[in-house]
Amino acid sequence: MKSVGLSALGRRTMAPPISWLMETALAQPDVISLAAGFTDHESLPVAEALEAFSRILGAKKSGRAALQYGTTAGNVKLRQLSAARVRSLDRATREEAYSAANLILTSGSQQMLYMLTEALCDPGDIVLVEDPSYFVYLGILQSHGIGARGIPMQPDGLDLVHLEAVLERVRKDGSLPRVKLLYSVSYYQNPSGITTGFEKKQGALDLLRYYERKAGHPIYLVEDAAYRELRFEGADVKSALAVPGRTSRVIYAGTYSKPFATGARVGFGLLPQPVRDVVLRIKGNHDFGSPSLLQHLLATAIESGAYTRHLAQLRECYRRKAKVMLASMREAFPSSEWLLPRGGLYFWARLPQKLASGMKSKLFQAALANRVLYVPGELCYANDPIRPKPNHEMRLSFGGETEKNIRHGIERLGEALGSMG
Amino acid sequence: MKSVGLSALGRRTMAPPISWLMETALAQPDVISLAAGFTDHESLPVAEALEAFSRILGAKKSGRAALQYGTTAGNVKLRQLSAARVRSLDRATREEAYSAANLILTSGSQQMLYMLTEALCDPGDIVLVEDPSYFVYLGILQSHGIGARGIPMQPDGLDLVHLEAVLERVRKDGSLPRVKLLYSVSYYQNPSGITTGFEKKQGALDLLRYYERKAGHPIYLVEDAAYRELRFEGADVKSALAVPGRTSRVIYAGTYSKPFATGARVGFGLLPQPVRDVVLRIKGNHDFGSPSLLQHLLATAIESGAYTRHLAQLRECYRRKAKVMLASMREAFPSSEWLLPRGGLYFWARLPQKLASGMKSKLFQAALANRVLYVPGELCYANDPIRPKPNHEMRLSFGGETEKNIRHGIERLGEALGSMG
Repeated sequence: MKSVGLSALGRRTMAPPISWLMETALAQPDVISLAAGFTDHESLPVAEALEAFSRILGAKKSGRAALQYGTTAGNVKLRQLSAARVRSLDRATREEAYSAANLILTSGSQQMLYMLTEALCDPGDIVLVEDPSYFVYLGILQSHGIGARGIPMQPDGLDLVHLEAVLERVRKDGSLPRVKLLYSVSYYQNPSGITTGFEKKQGALDLLRYYERKAGHPIYLVEDAAYRELRFEGADVKSALAVPGRTSRVIYAGTYSKPFATGARVGFGLLPQPVRDVVLRIKGNHDFGSPSLLQHLLATAIESGAYTRHLAQLRECYRRKAKVMLASMREAFPSSEWLLPRGGLYFWARLPQKLASGMKSKLFQAALANRVLYVPGELCYANDPIRPKPNHEMRLSFGGETEKNIRHGIERLGEALGSMG
Repeated sequence: MKSVGLSALGRRTMAPPISWLMETALAQPDVISLAAGFTDHESLPVAEALEAFSRILGAKKSGRAALQYGTTAGNVKLRQLSAARVRSLDRATREEAYSAANLILTSGSQQMLYMLTEALCDPGDIVLVEDPSYFVYLGILQSHGIGARGIPMQPDGLDLVHLEAVLERVRKDGSLPRVKLLYSVSYYQNPSGITTGFEKKQGALDLLRYYERKAGHPIYLVEDAAYRELRFEGADVKSALAVPGRTSRVIYAGTYSKPFATGARVGFGLLPQPVRDVVLRIKGNHDFGSPSLLQHLLATAIESGAYTRHLAQLRECYRRKAKVMLASMREAFPSSEWLLPRGGLYFWARLPQKLASGMKSKLFQAALANRVLYVPGELCYANDPIRPKPNHEMRLSFGGETEKNIRHGIERLGEALGSMG
């Protein structure tokens, strides 16, 4: 019998394209990977984590609490600290959008993205995504048989004129009732580095409000704030939770993986109560709660101040690494364009239109031969029947490699680019 | 707009019935909960976990590795140790079924159960389950719109005659192509305490082989071995992986939550390669890997011997607690029947047929008024259109409460039973 007997979801689910890149990097240790979205390795909070575990496990009572099952929503203390932190970043006076009761702790923010998509979307539904967007989220959509429509990005986020045009188009073709949510990576976006302005969030929510009346059900704005804490230039931007009167339509996903202990994978979501209830039930089936021990780790690190101190160092580290990458790119890529991010882990470089960057392109092969990897831009575009995927961009990460390797990697990539003639 | 805009899955997903029981127990601290499936609190390996973290985080190199992202399949060392452990328990000489390459580390074995069900089952499909079965798995089925057929249990596991009759019935009614798997909690079953004999596993696989030819696709045996390590009487039974020639049809789910660090929630699955590939892709979307830090914790605890030493103590602890519960039940429940488990965390008590035990029964209310909670047996039966749910059983856990509370809890329950007249 040759059949494996898979479900429709099982048949649709693809290996993430990045996994091939990761395997290639691991198999060839002399390859410099500007592809992986790893965090800085040297600065991982080894001493801070040991200190926190010594506090937690140094006393029997707190040790046992940390080693027992927790609740499905997660540790109360960390939920309160997390809700309060988002509220403080938003400089919010209203409290309703920042209630710990509406916060669920997850295994990375990734799990939150997965569960809320399960909660809201059926196969054949449509999700509005940014062009480009986070490719693992695009994988979730693909896996669930959910369609996507891409909304181009401007330097301050979503192109609202285009968003309205897309919504109007789906209204006219009768598929508006299938539109469930707009997914936005709003801070130092993965992959483009773009930060969405607060007015853009307001404008997007206004448009969704107008069209959800015609759709007959809520259309949510899912704000993926994974990189928010990795700000190294400029001021923080308030989240969509701070848009007056729209908190019932905003789902906010955050994480401690990027700003603190990557290998602890503690993330969270703040959700409107009816969605929160359903996602919590789904989480009951997924795992009935993420590891309690790691939630105690984060709560302890935040309360002791270790988290804030570590984050300040980390921002400095990424500021330096971004500068190194920028300086190297100026030398190596004279004919490309890029946006200077104000935080996060990524540069997004746009090559001349004639120069393809895809996995099968001459450039990618030349880069690989020159022992450097990048993420081809086309992997970051949803399958949208309306437009072809742009294929002359690259995501370049300064997260995981050392400053020296960033310099060498960009040099190698510049050589590959130069060889394209 | 009153609609929440949920998906079909979102609408189907119910709060687990146990959550109401847990909340009741938490809200009334003087309630003794024989309902919760918690592990023994006093014996949680606080010192062992601190010792392991000190080793891991005491050196920068291993500390950073543990705090960085891992791979989606999980830490290689722990995968090897886990595969070798199952192989050693099975006293297996053949190696193919125990390859670390086919092992995926998860957030508890629960996540493995969720993902493999996603990988194999569509809404409308049918899963064969034990009568009674693990209620959170029944929740997964309900959530995904998957039907269930219950197979009665005998003292040594599945009633194979009944299994054949059910398969024959679905063949005749044309729904055999919708049967995807048989789910069995094979060691010290949750909730019945029953251990499935090796011959039963062989027999079940033989029947599945016969019927899968008529179904046109594989029908897998999912062996949930969550309680295997908590053996305190008798010999271990080989897993279904050891049945010759059938390893391509066996999915084995294990966990370290029960035998070691509950709050670390490290579980795993050993899967036939084609299913493993798909589950790995699904996991890429769920969370692209469970927390690396906790996988390092388990690998270190196993390699140092702390795991084995702790497990020996834990088995003693549960042996004592089971004895305490048994002695108390002999005094308090003269008219009930129960099976003495040889491991795990549960007794399953059968009341006289006329005595209902459900959440709305007089007995449950009397027990709650007497400050003791149990899991009503009916919650452990799938929605099977063929038979009514038995409603005169109770799951009684000796896992979480102290010996003193077990005694008092059973006394209180005996009083409630006595008051039924």
